Amino acid sequence: MYPLNANKPWPENQWYVAGLSNEIGHDIIGRDLLGRHVILFRDEAGAPHALSGICPHRMLPLEQGRLKGDRVMCGYHGLEFDLEGRCVRSPITPAPPSCALARYPVREHAPLVWIWMGDAARAETTPLPEQELIGLGAAGWRSDQSHYYDLEARYSILIDNLFDLSHLGFIHADIMGEAGAIAFSQPYLSESDGRLVVSRDHLDCPVDPYHRSLHPGLGDRLSTRLDTDMLGICLINAGGPVWDGPDAAGTYQGSQNFIHVLTPASECRTHYWVFVARDFRTEDDGLSFALADQARRVADQDLVALEAIERLLASEMPLPREVSMKTDQGALRARHRLLQMINAEDGPSVAA
Amino acid sequence: MYPLNANKPWPENQWYVAGLSNEIGHDIIGRDLLGRHVILFRDEAGAPHALSGICPHRMLPLEQGRLKGDRVMCGYHGLEFDLEGRCVRSPITPAPPSCALARYPVREHAPLVWIWMGDAARAETTPLPEQELIGLGAAGWRSDQSHYYDLEARYSILIDNLFDLSHLGFIHADIMGEAGAIAFSQPYLSESDGRLVVSRDHLDCPVDPYHRSLHPGLGDRLSTRLDTDMLGICLINAGGPVWDGPDAAGTYQGSQNFIHVLTPASECRTHYWVFVARDFRTEDDGLSFALADQARRVADQDLVALEAIERLLASEMPLPREVSMKTDQGALRARHRLLQMINAEDGPSVAA
Amino acid sequence: MYPLNANKPWPENQWYVAGLSNEIGHDIIGRDLLGRHVILFRDEAGAPHALSGICPHRMLPLEQGRLKGDRVMCGYHGLEFDLEGRCVRSPITPAPPSCALARYPVREHAPLVWIWMGDAARAETTPLPEQELIGLGAAGWRSDQSHYYDLEARYSILIDNLFDLSHLGFIHADIMGEAGAIAFSQPYLSESDGRLVVSRDHLDCPVDPYHRSLHPGLGDRLSTRLDTDMLGICLINAGGPVWDGPDAAGTYQGSQNFIHVLTPASECRTHYWVFVARDFRTEDDGLSFALADQARRVADQDLVALEAIERLLASEMPLPREVSMKTDQGALRARHRLLQMINAEDGPSVAA
Repeated sequence: MYPLNANKPWPENQWYVAGLSNEIGHDIIGRDLLGRHVILFRDEAGAPHALSGICPHRMLPLEQGRLKGDRVMCGYHGLEFDLEGRCVRSPITPAPPSCALARYPVREHAPLVWIWMGDAARAETTPLPEQELIGLGAAGWRSDQSHYYDLEARYSILIDNLFDLSHLGFIHADIMGEAGAIAFSQPYLSESDGRLVVSRDHLDCPVDPYHRSLHPGLGDRLSTRLDTDMLGICLINAGGPVWDGPDAAGTYQGSQNFIHVLTPASECRTHYWVFVARDFRTEDDGLSFALADQARRVADQDLVALEAIERLLASEMPLPREVSMKTDQGALRARHRLLQMINAEDGPSVAA
Repeated sequence: MYPLNANKPWPENQWYVAGLSNEIGHDIIGRDLLGRHVILFRDEAGAPHALSGICPHRMLPLEQGRLKGDRVMCGYHGLEFDLEGRCVRSPITPAPPSCALARYPVREHAPLVWIWMGDAARAETTPLPEQELIGLGAAGWRSDQSHYYDLEARYSILIDNLFDLSHLGFIHADIMGEAGAIAFSQPYLSESDGRLVVSRDHLDCPVDPYHRSLHPGLGDRLSTRLDTDMLGICLINAGGPVWDGPDAAGTYQGSQNFIHVLTPASECRTHYWVFVARDFRTEDDGLSFALADQARRVADQDLVALEAIERLLASEMPLPREVSMKTDQGALRARHRLLQMINAEDGPSVAA
Repeated sequence: MYPLNANKPWPENQWYVAGLSNEIGHDIIGRDLLGRHVILFRDEAGAPHALSGICPHRMLPLEQGRLKGDRVMCGYHGLEFDLEGRCVRSPITPAPPSCALARYPVREHAPLVWIWMGDAARAETTPLPEQELIGLGAAGWRSDQSHYYDLEARYSILIDNLFDLSHLGFIHADIMGEAGAIAFSQPYLSESDGRLVVSRDHLDCPVDPYHRSLHPGLGDRLSTRLDTDMLGICLINAGGPVWDGPDAAGTYQGSQNFIHVLTPASECRTHYWVFVARDFRTEDDGLSFALADQARRVADQDLVALEAIERLLASEMPLPREVSMKTDQGALRARHRLLQMINAEDGPSVAA
């Protein structure tokens, strides 16, 4: 159960989302990521950077300093660090070479800025999760940010939540209405090296008001598929396509995705960004607004449940022994993959 | 001192108060009791029930679910549990038999609902504390609820407080006035299997305004007795009778009780309900209001002291070695009884 | 780094400031000092006293009691303690001799009240820090209280702060203006048994508006010295003299001191009082107000930095290895002296 591994709550050698393209500017942001304090900023040319966020001189968090051109200046005694993290100026006497900030590899693929906090040598050879596959920054798609949450719960509870969408019919019953019926379909699983997908089909259904409003061209019957698609530890899509008619051979109407971006801040807190994306009516601003608002209301409901679970886990309260059912196959598989990644970094197999 | 026993803060094989008859309805309440999370509700026939309050599937606190007839439905993935705690429905695939909630024996004796959280077999053979002896739900008496406190202090500090009523003359001096003088009488102790009573007599006193207002028929002198009466771990009365004249041979005027109902929520938090009861002027609503209000003001003052003591105990501050006096005999005896109950459950004598 | 010594955060055999003369009256104040709970009050003759602040009977913090003449009466059960801490009255039955409060030696040297919490025998032979040397309660000087802070940071971070005044040019750049330039001078160190001074000279400078406003008689050039002067663990001055002309041979204009009084409350909290003192224009109330206000604004800025550092230290966040520079010589020396005092109390050298 939780934590997956008592000694190490997450794998390090992975790309994680450090922040959003539109929140990082020529100004210092401080943020806890994977249990470390990091600063994020853009240089004068606009490229994003991530450095350790604590001055090694007297431990001031560096977001209390400021940028001076392309240098980070500590707000306490004025030490200046370059983009590599080296201390290149100290007001009175020079700092020793050991006075440096760790530098983390960063890559931007709008709307996301990714960070690598593990073995830097492996960052080069590890591709980013293919975010365009789910419509984030992809041609023909429109994506909109819904909401950011400083979730007071460990990230693994959120992954569990996303891999068991049968909860749509309960926590979110009031928002989902008839469209939540798909949650009661039997899920099936497909898996590849970088991806785990749990799918549910809902074929040959009468068109409900929600889908009618999205796709006015629908006839009387529709078919949909709902995937939970893990493209990377911190990038999970919940969404899928709609077809006119009794099965997936019908006319494709479009896909709508609820994209969950999650990065552990610490063992019990998670940065959680929610996006919506779609490949139909992409010029319709009102529809973007409505879908982002709906996603926010859904995530608000999850927040209440997840933080309540976290409070129980973090308490000294005795917990029942966890029970899983056949429908939990996807969530258990997701946990298993996470645990494999974590254990591979700890054991001798890393060197192999 | 505190805690009485470092490994086990309270005896388990006891009836405790889970809640009040009038707060438990056909709706789920979640509550921490003896360090465990419990849900309370009434079935459609009106009988109260207590089950473990954490869904064993993904640990949602079950007060975030709802009742569906006589079933508890988890708010997360819709698992349904019957009154025995068995999972009798799971939306897509069945849950294994291990998917169950612990069920706790419950008995209602208005205005209290009692719960047994220890060895269930012993609940049957253990009678409830005789609450009618102190006027709670007894013929000829009227009882009124005064106030509920989520006391941020361990329960044993509150028991100490009730067993040393000499504090009436200090913490509550402003409220008690002359009636607090009884606090300075020498206490004496009587004890039986299920009950511990510390009494103080105040004989042949001039009638003070407070007693005059309660008993207009009094002459010039009155006699009173003030008992701290422990009928069970979580049921303690502080009150007693009033007689007209120089001793207990005078005309009985009536008894007034301040009843303290306390159940540990966790090691450092206590559910604390205060009741007032009397066997005179039972039709007088104004008097009920005045007495309940007085009891609340008294308990408000205790709260300030008890939570300040708890903060010291819970801090890393060094504490002086505890000193007791002869007047603490009753409180020490109460602690001793509690410790005996706790130790009897741990040691081999349980099996004997 | 921090803490200086993992087992003992501060030396005990030292005079510390318990409070200010003007805040201690014939009324009980409760205060945590060096990790212990203490009460402070004046007797009827006006002399200040410090006793352990926890009643050994049932652990009530004694600031919830009150003074009864020269006795401290516990607010719970009315036990009365004399100025030596002996329990001299208990309402019903006498308390045993072990019922007593620890008494701490106290000395008043206005505006400060000092306390000794270590080996009482050594208090007699240890003089108070010579506070008049920096203008606190000294003839020819005026001192004014600026502000009190309940600083949520360990005291050693504050000492570091005061011993590296190069931060004047950064954290306080907006308040200091040109007068902050002295922060960039090379510091030099002088040391004696009871005192550690780190000084900076700023000679032959053009007169800036700030010094002009303080000393209207200045010509075109001035010279100043800025000392960090540790007279005792909890008494540190940051200030110094001003001369007219190119060096210290010029006409003395006066000295201005920012006096920092700090006493550990617990491992991570510090009582922090700020005073200003000067030996010029001592009748000018407006100047007193302006300087005290400036000192408060400066300390407000330090507070933000120091509490942010404390949060990092107190977190489970990995910290970089601390780096120091040549300019940190004074701060490192101050730490070294503290550590020597701490270790001398622990080891066999105490007896030597």
